[in-house]
Amino acid sequence: MVYTGVQPVQWERDQLKLLDQRILPQTETWLFYDNVRDAAQAITDMVVRGAPAIGITAAYAVVLAARAHYKQSGDNWQASIKDDLAMLADARPTAINLQWAIDTLQVQFSDISGDPEPALLKLAQQIHAEDIAACQLMGKMGSEFLPENCSVLTHCNAGALATGGYGTALGVIRAGVEAGKITQVFADETRPWLQGARLTAWELLQDKIPVDLLADGAASYLMSQGKVDWVVVGSDRVAANGDVANKIGTYNLAVAAKYHGVKFMVVAPTSTVDMQVASGKDIPIESRDADEIHKVGGQIIAAEGAGAWNPVFDVTPAELVDVFVSEKAAIEQPNQDKILAMMEK
Amino acid sequence: MVYTGVQPVQWERDQLKLLDQRILPQTETWLFYDNVRDAAQAITDMVVRGAPAIGITAAYAVVLAARAHYKQSGDNWQASIKDDLAMLADARPTAINLQWAIDTLQVQFSDISGDPEPALLKLAQQIHAEDIAACQLMGKMGSEFLPENCSVLTHCNAGALATGGYGTALGVIRAGVEAGKITQVFADETRPWLQGARLTAWELLQDKIPVDLLADGAASYLMSQGKVDWVVVGSDRVAANGDVANKIGTYNLAVAAKYHGVKFMVVAPTSTVDMQVASGKDIPIESRDADEIHKVGGQIIAAEGAGAWNPVFDVTPAELVDVFVSEKAAIEQPNQDKILAMMEK
Repeated sequence: MVYTGVQPVQWERDQLKLLDQRILPQTETWLFYDNVRDAAQAITDMVVRGAPAIGITAAYAVVLAARAHYKQSGDNWQASIKDDLAMLADARPTAINLQWAIDTLQVQFSDISGDPEPALLKLAQQIHAEDIAACQLMGKMGSEFLPENCSVLTHCNAGALATGGYGTALGVIRAGVEAGKITQVFADETRPWLQGARLTAWELLQDKIPVDLLADGAASYLMSQGKVDWVVVGSDRVAANGDVANKIGTYNLAVAAKYHGVKFMVVAPTSTVDMQVASGKDIPIESRDADEIHKVGGQIIAAEGAGAWNPVFDVTPAELVDVFVSEKAAIEQPNQDKILAMMEK
Repeated sequence: MVYTGVQPVQWERDQLKLLDQRILPQTETWLFYDNVRDAAQAITDMVVRGAPAIGITAAYAVVLAARAHYKQSGDNWQASIKDDLAMLADARPTAINLQWAIDTLQVQFSDISGDPEPALLKLAQQIHAEDIAACQLMGKMGSEFLPENCSVLTHCNAGALATGGYGTALGVIRAGVEAGKITQVFADETRPWLQGARLTAWELLQDKIPVDLLADGAASYLMSQGKVDWVVVGSDRVAANGDVANKIGTYNLAVAAKYHGVKFMVVAPTSTVDMQVASGKDIPIESRDADEIHKVGGQIIAAEGAGAWNPVFDVTPAELVDVFVSEKAAIEQPNQDKILAMMEK
């Protein structure tokens, strides 16, 4: 099954190429990066976002760093690159895929002699291809849980734009639509960054999948009207006990889903699982600038002088998750033992 | 206790004068209305919003209608005014205060002989003054439930801007701050119309009450961090059984509050209680244009072609309300019997 849809992270003309997600859907602009520092800044600034897409970007950024250090330091590149990799790892705190991708490449360094670029690029491209394949597989596995005539609600963008391609939560929705099971897709607009209104709607409509947007606060009322069967979301980091960090507002949906008897599915590749973190309370949660609350698209909306509380992720405890889907397994009622068994597969 | 703060609805130079809430806080513009049709349109267009403020506006609009019909039809004005009153009542569907104010004036029509304007204006001004007095009383009554060092979260704008002045939920917050009990105020930004970010923040800051805004989807996470003791909101219509219609997102907060053991208070004058409606499921819920979801401040934010689900109110069942405060009583665990007893006081 060859994937031919949107790929927000690419390698072209020996450079990293990113679709600028800050200005979608009004403007479709691609930016090129030839050095690791600018690539890290692009992650910080959310030119690219979504845990798997950040991981793939980081992998290509390591290639750029290795190229520069090999050119500058020759065979000493493996030592001199370390500061740059630490800087890259600090670009954003919550998505573990960032560190995972750096580690995955770094562990191969000692096997490399001479110019590291060809070997590392091959690895980065492999990470990229495997992510797309994982998304397609998760889409199939996750969609099998959905009933006929299913109505789904998703949050943020866990789609092609957040991954190598195809998407995690939107992968399940794509597969569910293709299987004829999904008859209605709702998407939270997802303040403050409006990933739902801007990105999820854009990419679903590119695939001719109709979607109805709603204000984030309306989700509980939507559920109370019997209009949602499954909530399907992605994740930025999964703890060893199955707790899930994801875009702010996800936990709110999980609480509402539990209250209304709506099912809750989390879809994320194993590169998002952090076995070093025992539970969700140990996952670092990024807070971003108050400006994101005070403004929309550069336009000030809030009263001058107001403060803001702007954590951009939250943690959903495993007990609120009905199904966790990775490329290795679909786990019902995830917990520490089941996550460990999945990771050891 | 004379109220000297913001009054969004006024009577000046023999006309209705409204603070244009569509463009606050960036621009403070007052609009004048000399006829009932334009006044009704102002309610529909949300120049003025908030159930009690809509009621007061409607009262003054009846004065404008009576003036015109008396001028045109003389003593036949009581018959010829009826179509205009029906049109006015239809300006918005959910806030019962609109119909309540029209009824309150209309029931006096038969006692009036000659020019109706002086008598009706006096009644409208009395409704206005009584609303402010009710808000001040409710503020005191509601704030007595708050503990010391209390952190409150409010939604939408149930403030001076939504009433004759002082506010319902924000009246409780004003009184709680004045009593030294409230140490932290959070306000949901309240998409799609951003009443929290634009109006609640503006009017609290005018009174030098600091406020932190948050994305609506972040409220559950805020509660899970132990940062909220009480949610305090207003209402657009209360059913006979205590079910509460209020701005979309309120029900979401009530569900989250119940889950986290956070207390939930609704503050509304008895003019908001509709004894003709048995339960919340019979309250008409207004849906507004998809544009409100697709745009912010005239700027398109959503992907072109996306649909929208935009009910602008929701219903919170009485069992999720810990305290209901009107000017007549503060009721814990409201239900049909307690609401009836309150209304018969």
